[in-house]
Amino acid sequence: MPRNQQILLDNRPQGEATVSNFKLVAVDTPALQEGQVLVRHHYLSLDPYMRGRMNDSKSYAASQPLGEVMIGGTVGEVVESRHAKFAPGDKVVGMGGWQEYSVVDGDAPGMLRKVDTKHVPLSYYLGTVGMPGVTAWYGLVKIINPKAGETVVVSAATGAVGSAFAALAKARGCRVVGIAGGPEKCAYATNELGFDECIDYKLHPDVKSMSKALKDACPNGIDGYFENVGGHILDAVLLRANAFSRIAMCGMIAGYDGQSLPLQNPALILVNRMKIEGFIVSEHMQVWPEALTELATLVAQGKLRPRETIAQGIESAPQAFLGLLKGKNFGKQLVKLV
Amino acid sequence: MPRNQQILLDNRPQGEATVSNFKLVAVDTPALQEGQVLVRHHYLSLDPYMRGRMNDSKSYAASQPLGEVMIGGTVGEVVESRHAKFAPGDKVVGMGGWQEYSVVDGDAPGMLRKVDTKHVPLSYYLGTVGMPGVTAWYGLVKIINPKAGETVVVSAATGAVGSAFAALAKARGCRVVGIAGGPEKCAYATNELGFDECIDYKLHPDVKSMSKALKDACPNGIDGYFENVGGHILDAVLLRANAFSRIAMCGMIAGYDGQSLPLQNPALILVNRMKIEGFIVSEHMQVWPEALTELATLVAQGKLRPRETIAQGIESAPQAFLGLLKGKNFGKQLVKLV
Repeated sequence: MPRNQQILLDNRPQGEATVSNFKLVAVDTPALQEGQVLVRHHYLSLDPYMRGRMNDSKSYAASQPLGEVMIGGTVGEVVESRHAKFAPGDKVVGMGGWQEYSVVDGDAPGMLRKVDTKHVPLSYYLGTVGMPGVTAWYGLVKIINPKAGETVVVSAATGAVGSAFAALAKARGCRVVGIAGGPEKCAYATNELGFDECIDYKLHPDVKSMSKALKDACPNGIDGYFENVGGHILDAVLLRANAFSRIAMCGMIAGYDGQSLPLQNPALILVNRMKIEGFIVSEHMQVWPEALTELATLVAQGKLRPRETIAQGIESAPQAFLGLLKGKNFGKQLVKLV
Repeated sequence: MPRNQQILLDNRPQGEATVSNFKLVAVDTPALQEGQVLVRHHYLSLDPYMRGRMNDSKSYAASQPLGEVMIGGTVGEVVESRHAKFAPGDKVVGMGGWQEYSVVDGDAPGMLRKVDTKHVPLSYYLGTVGMPGVTAWYGLVKIINPKAGETVVVSAATGAVGSAFAALAKARGCRVVGIAGGPEKCAYATNELGFDECIDYKLHPDVKSMSKALKDACPNGIDGYFENVGGHILDAVLLRANAFSRIAMCGMIAGYDGQSLPLQNPALILVNRMKIEGFIVSEHMQVWPEALTELATLVAQGKLRPRETIAQGIESAPQAFLGLLKGKNFGKQLVKLV
């Protein structure tokens, strides 16, 4: 059996996460039991939610246990199978974690799914046509539920979620405004991702300045906001929110290290009769087929051309992950393992 | 025509509202035009939302104009009518404002409604079987939408909204926990209003203490919260909120004077996958008939016995209103005008 390099969570972050929280080990892959499948991972997905799992505190999901392989989405190829539905060569998406191989129970619901790589590149199943894409879809369609002509805003605009959000919102006739860090990302957002405008948050480090930038970019106010970041951007959005506006709350990257991130004026939720809803997309599996179909179609039509940042080799995963948390990636952050 | 005493908004509060913001005047009631009705007010309703109208800032409703009669709900009797649908002696509910008489266009939608006083006392149409009762109904039924066995919490528990909320929630099989100021109000909440428990917020002036009290009163966590107050109570509720819990945001009394009332940890909205929704009941007129029917039935069955605090005479309205904002009332605050 092949040798399998893995990255374990070795200890929990004290404040900011560091590479020393992780540990690289190598083990032999075990012999397959009846019903099991051995998958060689081609790509590992890195996503902001993983930072939340590293903490011990109450979160929307179980803590990542110490000494175990870090959780994470993977795409790869079946190399050995003792399950009738899977054969060597099948391309699959699953939750293999931060390692080169995984042994999967072929019958466990939702753990392994064969995918078509004729119209969609394999790696996209970790981004646009995967969990981040469905996340954008759920927040836009099920929470914000915009009408044509409404203005919607998304933070972390050039990331995997943000880029899918833009394409989905444009398809619904919305004005779409992004928020991203730096002129290069903002130019990419408007030139390639279809955003009508993109605000560089590095130029607007406080509520007043960000609120002014939002006013300029959203002359008719904000009807929907997809929250990936938290902090002063959310405060500024509330100041520009229209009556009956909706906020889908999906991530609070700014707060993952444990710092307090107060919302300055929650009374605006009442004043504007807003709806704010937090969600985690894995709890809404019933929408995945519909969402994935729309996302794959947008990709096939060339209306959604996501960018990827690819680190090479399992040993590069911790550093790439820390870069993601600081916005150093450009588009979907992946680790290539083959 | 009778002489009509009125209270006008004379100037806007600088911070806390005071009696000097108001001005008492007397005018003659004008002769009726065709289609108009003259109503003598028996009771004037005092409600926290009026404080928001006194400010000039953007709010969910138009500012109260200076020099005009303060807005407010009234019940009374038709004393003269030039409209076919109204006759002298009819008991009516309307938005007559802070004055002894009003002249109403009998055709204006929603401005004047005849009511039955056989089964429901006239004054109740300003409280339990009126706007505050429907407010409780909307927040509970349309936003919190609880299942039997869930735990719901309401602040300002012994007020007009809170008492209706308790009866409506008990009728749906919920555990109902109130938050009120002082041992007398808490005893009333549990002894007469049907609350399972009531927390005295004066004993729990900070988030930590309030959170502990909520933990004791809500051993299975909080599934729904009806927000009337704002401030540290909301922070404490978020710390005890269950996954998929819902908050109906209806009032932020604590913030009416313009002070900042940050929400300390909005990331909990995501962690708990919560829904928070602000609303104003006058924008949902379609639910009023259903809500009023249920509320009147609860009153007729003796399951909802609200208390009232009644000030006498139009000149007492400003002082009674300021007392309401400080929680000095016990149950629905009214001004008796006859």
